[in-house]
Amino acid sequence: MLTQLQLDGNGPLHAQLTRALKQALESGQLGQGSRLPPTRFMSEQMGLSRNTVLAAYEQLRTEGYIDGRVGSGSYVTAPTRRPAEPAPATRLPAPNTFVARTRQHLDHQNLPGKAIPGVRFSLQYGSPYTNPALTTAWARELSHAALYTSPNYSWAQGLPELRQAISEYVLRRGVEASPDDVLIVAGTQQAMSLCARVLMEAGDPVAIEEPQYYATRSIMLAYGAHLQPVPVDEEGLQVDALPDVSSLGQAPRLICTTPSHQFPYGGTMPEARRAALLEYAHRHGSWVIEDDYDGEIRYDARPLSSLKSQDRHDRVIYVGTFSKMLFPSMRLGFMVVPRGLRKDFVAAKWMEDFGASAIDQAALANFMKSGAFDRHLRRSLVALRERRDALLEGLRQMSNGRLEFRDSQAGMHIPVWLKHRSREEGRQFIERARGMGLGLYSLSPYYLDPPDRAGLILGYAGLPVRDIELALEVLRRCLEVEYSARAH
Amino acid sequence: MLTQLQLDGNGPLHAQLTRALKQALESGQLGQGSRLPPTRFMSEQMGLSRNTVLAAYEQLRTEGYIDGRVGSGSYVTAPTRRPAEPAPATRLPAPNTFVARTRQHLDHQNLPGKAIPGVRFSLQYGSPYTNPALTTAWARELSHAALYTSPNYSWAQGLPELRQAISEYVLRRGVEASPDDVLIVAGTQQAMSLCARVLMEAGDPVAIEEPQYYATRSIMLAYGAHLQPVPVDEEGLQVDALPDVSSLGQAPRLICTTPSHQFPYGGTMPEARRAALLEYAHRHGSWVIEDDYDGEIRYDARPLSSLKSQDRHDRVIYVGTFSKMLFPSMRLGFMVVPRGLRKDFVAAKWMEDFGASAIDQAALANFMKSGAFDRHLRRSLVALRERRDALLEGLRQMSNGRLEFRDSQAGMHIPVWLKHRSREEGRQFIERARGMGLGLYSLSPYYLDPPDRAGLILGYAGLPVRDIELALEVLRRCLEVEYSARAH
Repeated sequence: MLTQLQLDGNGPLHAQLTRALKQALESGQLGQGSRLPPTRFMSEQMGLSRNTVLAAYEQLRTEGYIDGRVGSGSYVTAPTRRPAEPAPATRLPAPNTFVARTRQHLDHQNLPGKAIPGVRFSLQYGSPYTNPALTTAWARELSHAALYTSPNYSWAQGLPELRQAISEYVLRRGVEASPDDVLIVAGTQQAMSLCARVLMEAGDPVAIEEPQYYATRSIMLAYGAHLQPVPVDEEGLQVDALPDVSSLGQAPRLICTTPSHQFPYGGTMPEARRAALLEYAHRHGSWVIEDDYDGEIRYDARPLSSLKSQDRHDRVIYVGTFSKMLFPSMRLGFMVVPRGLRKDFVAAKWMEDFGASAIDQAALANFMKSGAFDRHLRRSLVALRERRDALLEGLRQMSNGRLEFRDSQAGMHIPVWLKHRSREEGRQFIERARGMGLGLYSLSPYYLDPPDRAGLILGYAGLPVRDIELALEVLRRCLEVEYSARAH
Repeated sequence: MLTQLQLDGNGPLHAQLTRALKQALESGQLGQGSRLPPTRFMSEQMGLSRNTVLAAYEQLRTEGYIDGRVGSGSYVTAPTRRPAEPAPATRLPAPNTFVARTRQHLDHQNLPGKAIPGVRFSLQYGSPYTNPALTTAWARELSHAALYTSPNYSWAQGLPELRQAISEYVLRRGVEASPDDVLIVAGTQQAMSLCARVLMEAGDPVAIEEPQYYATRSIMLAYGAHLQPVPVDEEGLQVDALPDVSSLGQAPRLICTTPSHQFPYGGTMPEARRAALLEYAHRHGSWVIEDDYDGEIRYDARPLSSLKSQDRHDRVIYVGTFSKMLFPSMRLGFMVVPRGLRKDFVAAKWMEDFGASAIDQAALANFMKSGAFDRHLRRSLVALRERRDALLEGLRQMSNGRLEFRDSQAGMHIPVWLKHRSREEGRQFIERARGMGLGLYSLSPYYLDPPDRAGLILGYAGLPVRDIELALEVLRRCLEVEYSARAH
């Protein structure tokens, strides 16, 4: 009576058998109270192992279709159903505004940060500098925190001890924040997302650096920002190019900026420009989101304090991350929020996810408090400087008038242009490098309106000096091919 | 010349001194190129330890205000500034729509899940069942995962090995999902938040159980849902009370439901009602969000499969959490999303936070794969049943016609009404219990429109049997006082 059982070939055999049996039950082949074939019999009939059959029966038992025990027979208990009409393909309704905007602006194929698989060396921005000491220390901190942290719901704003550690940490960036001013988030990205939800309305003008961090642009667009790209130069955001409010009709609600190290163009915003930016924000009631992502990574000059440290009118939302100084899979970052906004930000964080993992937070708090974080920072700076030096030196040697790049005194990447080459030629160049085992990444996705030039963002944090040298050797060969084949 | 330095008494002494020195620099007391007093002199003048002074100078150095080395003198380098006009109180603009809705609906003072401090026993819903074995195992898993997980950015959709483990896990709830159908989120709350962003538009009707989970209601309201409360009875959501679409003018865009164990009222939705609910959703093109939060915790009957397992038209978004079966501070949950929506959900998750911590995910995947999770589940069920039995038995003994509650075959809490008592009297009752060291929690926050009855939600997962008995003893005394003082 069960001769018609057909397996559909999808997934594990026991799941296939479970599905087939359910179909038989629902089609009425096996009515309520009837007995399923003994597992041994079924196993022979279907040519399946007895364990597979046992697993399928157990599944049906769990789901309440059958009753009884192995050995004494399994009986159909569930009311059997006629199968529903064959399911039509799901009629998906029109996407809502958020989804429509996302689909329009987010290029799933081209998300920066997605590693190119199968390459030997990847000059990818965002790969962290790590070392075995950090890995071991972090494993120990997590294990310790798991033993001593409450398993219960924690504070949406963040664990008090981590907020305390961060309030001390940001002092060196000139930010005077009490632990109450700090909000723990799941990285810079969530900080931006919360800013969009809490501070702007769809249609609001939002000033953004051009080029800019791809993900920040995406989230602002998804929330309906009317983006106002502001050009950057060697000194970061060109503050005097901020929108003219009288002609725009409305001041930018938000100004997104990376004053310590403009991303990805490089450059640090000098004092005078900072003052002008704050003055603009104060005059027009704009909020400034300061993404201080590379604030501490300065090589040949002292870090300037953060913009937030100069903020006398509480216009700046300060955003920091541990993705760069520790590692990105950690998913912890923080914000320092003007007092009048704090409650709304904490509520938005609570509504999103109730707050970050208490164990992760406790581990990080202890890592900071013990001094291990500072030791890691110092070690990182030494290693990163060596890597930067190796990359810069290699680029200088191979440039031969074909590359355009500047000295880089901060951060973990160098933007490089291929001279006399179009964006499309740049794409082909990246493809060729990939074929030779070298992962290169385009600057284009970081532009709202990409220039027709071939640009690369070379991240060096993740590669030891020796690997950088080997990567450079491949790059040099790619350049030879590119510029010998055709005229400059 | 620096005789005017005044410490403001806020925070660490070195920070106070740094602030005071900055003020002196900015007010022009110390011009560019001038020399700061030697640290020893400053230390004596101000009555501060030399280390404090050194820390302040170092801070100024880091921020670029001064130059030079200890011993040879510190010189003012930064261009000094006149102080800005005294900052006016920040002019906060009118809140945006999201914030306005949040402020209107979210009662910060009364967030459920906030523990009452200082009580001896807390019958709080949401406290997890944990034991030393789980704690130790989890510490080991985290430590192991930290050593062997890539520190890099991970998949926004979730670690493949965790999605694989979950696709096997949900099979026992009747859900046939490939790892591709699974999205890892930061708990149920984020699942709800993503649903609101991806599936609805402000103003859309959203059907919600009354009573319902407070946080789900909050997030829907924050996104502008036009809530349609649907009453529940002993069998969960009253499907025939779902909005009449012809009179509403528009079908509910979402239907939020807890079919396995209605939260917080209790009760499991029977077959026929499930079929009717799916039929309604199919007919009207509504999405059903199935929060299967207690799906596996059944005591005296087999768990019914999930609603999702019956979903032939891809209308159900299935949401699961590890907060209940493991512990809430973990902040990991998952969704099984209809195929046509997957890309949009993954994009929304990527835009929110790039995905969950890879280490946490790897630890959980291994915990599930090794069988440790199943062992913990079995152990939990035994312990939870004992706790439930102790609570139910105690309530029966003290009820004396004053309490109203039902047998409870699922989950980790029991809703209890105090007979003939108003909501306000219930509030006072809770306050009195608190004074006697017992943490009780009201049912009112779980209603959109709370009834004028005194209701409690008694969570028992977090207390060993002995503590439940002691808690019950306090509750009994509170009842004696309440019902002897005044007529029933």
